[in-house]
Amino acid sequence: MGEIIQFDKEAPAALADDATLDRLQALVAEDLREVNRVILDYMQSDVALIPKLAGHIIASGGKRLRPILTLAVARMCGYSGARHVSLAACIEFIHTATLLHDDVIDESDLRRGKATANAVWGNKPSVLVGDFLFSRAFQLSVTDGSLKVLGILANTSAVLAEGEVMQLLTSNDTDTSEAAYLEVITAKTATLFAAACQLGGIVAERPANEEEGLKNYGLNLGIAYQLVDDALDYSAREAELGKSIGDDFREGKITLPVVLSFRRGGEEEREFWRRTMEEGEQTEDDFERAVVLLERHGAIRDSLERARHYGDVARDSLAIFPDCAEKQGLLEVIDFCIRRAH
Amino acid sequence: MGEIIQFDKEAPAALADDATLDRLQALVAEDLREVNRVILDYMQSDVALIPKLAGHIIASGGKRLRPILTLAVARMCGYSGARHVSLAACIEFIHTATLLHDDVIDESDLRRGKATANAVWGNKPSVLVGDFLFSRAFQLSVTDGSLKVLGILANTSAVLAEGEVMQLLTSNDTDTSEAAYLEVITAKTATLFAAACQLGGIVAERPANEEEGLKNYGLNLGIAYQLVDDALDYSAREAELGKSIGDDFREGKITLPVVLSFRRGGEEEREFWRRTMEEGEQTEDDFERAVVLLERHGAIRDSLERARHYGDVARDSLAIFPDCAEKQGLLEVIDFCIRRAH
Repeated sequence: MGEIIQFDKEAPAALADDATLDRLQALVAEDLREVNRVILDYMQSDVALIPKLAGHIIASGGKRLRPILTLAVARMCGYSGARHVSLAACIEFIHTATLLHDDVIDESDLRRGKATANAVWGNKPSVLVGDFLFSRAFQLSVTDGSLKVLGILANTSAVLAEGEVMQLLTSNDTDTSEAAYLEVITAKTATLFAAACQLGGIVAERPANEEEGLKNYGLNLGIAYQLVDDALDYSAREAELGKSIGDDFREGKITLPVVLSFRRGGEEEREFWRRTMEEGEQTEDDFERAVVLLERHGAIRDSLERARHYGDVARDSLAIFPDCAEKQGLLEVIDFCIRRAH
Repeated sequence: MGEIIQFDKEAPAALADDATLDRLQALVAEDLREVNRVILDYMQSDVALIPKLAGHIIASGGKRLRPILTLAVARMCGYSGARHVSLAACIEFIHTATLLHDDVIDESDLRRGKATANAVWGNKPSVLVGDFLFSRAFQLSVTDGSLKVLGILANTSAVLAEGEVMQLLTSNDTDTSEAAYLEVITAKTATLFAAACQLGGIVAERPANEEEGLKNYGLNLGIAYQLVDDALDYSAREAELGKSIGDDFREGKITLPVVLSFRRGGEEEREFWRRTMEEGEQTEDDFERAVVLLERHGAIRDSLERARHYGDVARDSLAIFPDCAEKQGLLEVIDFCIRRAH
């Protein structure tokens, strides 16, 4: 065994915003400890750098939202076995591999001063450890032994990669439409949320209509989550809480607030967006100016309104399930995803 | 359908060295066309950059040695179905994904003037398209439907990633031992050769001892192949043929010729290797000097001798199989791998 990382010793919830995730976390706490055990187990390797680097990103990986979804859905569906634990770990490994690969930078990015996890070890170790974790997810799902599950994970991985490439292509492109943006976040984020939830229903052997409902819950929750995440990157509230903001702006990543502001603004404003986000020429005051423009056009407000829409669809996707503590928790996750912006 | 790439229209074999691969290529020609069809089919995506970039690397991918092994082994084992075709494509996708990720560079590499495929599109697209191809391999193997096959591919992928990380750790480290070098090339190269051959036996449902023989044939062939490849990077013969040499030296990649020369040389020579390969401080004449030192210590000669040893073991691994055209071809591949150095 390489690095010892204590996952159980969670940082105390500092933000009141996290409150709405509490119920679900408490409901699956025992399962989640098992997930963390599987993660620790499967990230081991005789090549010491692998658990070291993997542990760094997995430990800092936050709330374990995706595996919690798998666990909670399986419980809501009355599942009492153990398959959901390894599949939840599998989902987290795929997520972590994506994070590592998402952090890979090109020389051009260095100019814009991006500092990510891979700044510590460099691009190549991040890529290779990502590959390793992805392979581990593959191994875990083979151990589970269901071809249906394997097919879903394989398809999900392909769509994730497509989404990441699409995001790259819309990067620095102020012409990006709302539809294109939506396609990107659906592929790169929501698909994994959808799989996380669908797998919970599959292990419980629920009928097709329920499985579809769970998948749609995850898909729409994922879209809402990413919409809010992208809005938060321009949020003064986030800055107050000491979180980093402005990353998307500095990287020229075109998210919905920018899509809306660019299209609603006049030619002078569009010139501003082109200079800062397409050509990457930014001065110190530009981020502040960007926030003023977003405010002027209600771009953050409307991004959150869009998120609320997907949250509503997610909520209705669960309507066919009878009330229970887990269902209540899953509904509260929708609020958690949306309310953290306020 | 995106890019149209003609795989069938092969470049004429320019080198006499390629001759010993001819028999096997001819024997599996029809199957190989099918493999290329599957590859073309599965590398498609609505995201146009994906088939474009993937096609670039797959088309330039050379001899299709690994998928040819799967096809030929399956035929040698009397298999008459079609599973070997999609598994051969699967192996080629994994190989291609590895190539793309292997080309990822860090800022530090730029100094040394490495120019790779990803120089055209940048690190990030290479990583993401690699992920996509890896996911496609995953999808293909799920379609095949055998958990045993899936398990082998998942384990192989994990070991490949470990091998790549190990290689990174031995990079620039002149203390690297022959044993450590061997461990690296076994993991990063030979494991995939082994899987390629083993899968051919599995689809033909051969007994365990034959499956093991095939795996060992692939493993030892792969080690021999990489040993020769690493020797060729210092070969004047290669330079005569217009191939690029000296890449490993410039990148500080520690291969067996350097391991042997470093250990056999005196302190002054070791200082040379440390300066050039550890600290990466190289002048124009240094590569020539390196070749002189390798020559002095018989490092290339002995690297090829080691390769011959593994070639012999590969040959004996096939001894339990009755003679047939495919077996003859597989034995000739060993010669092909070793003789291309002369």
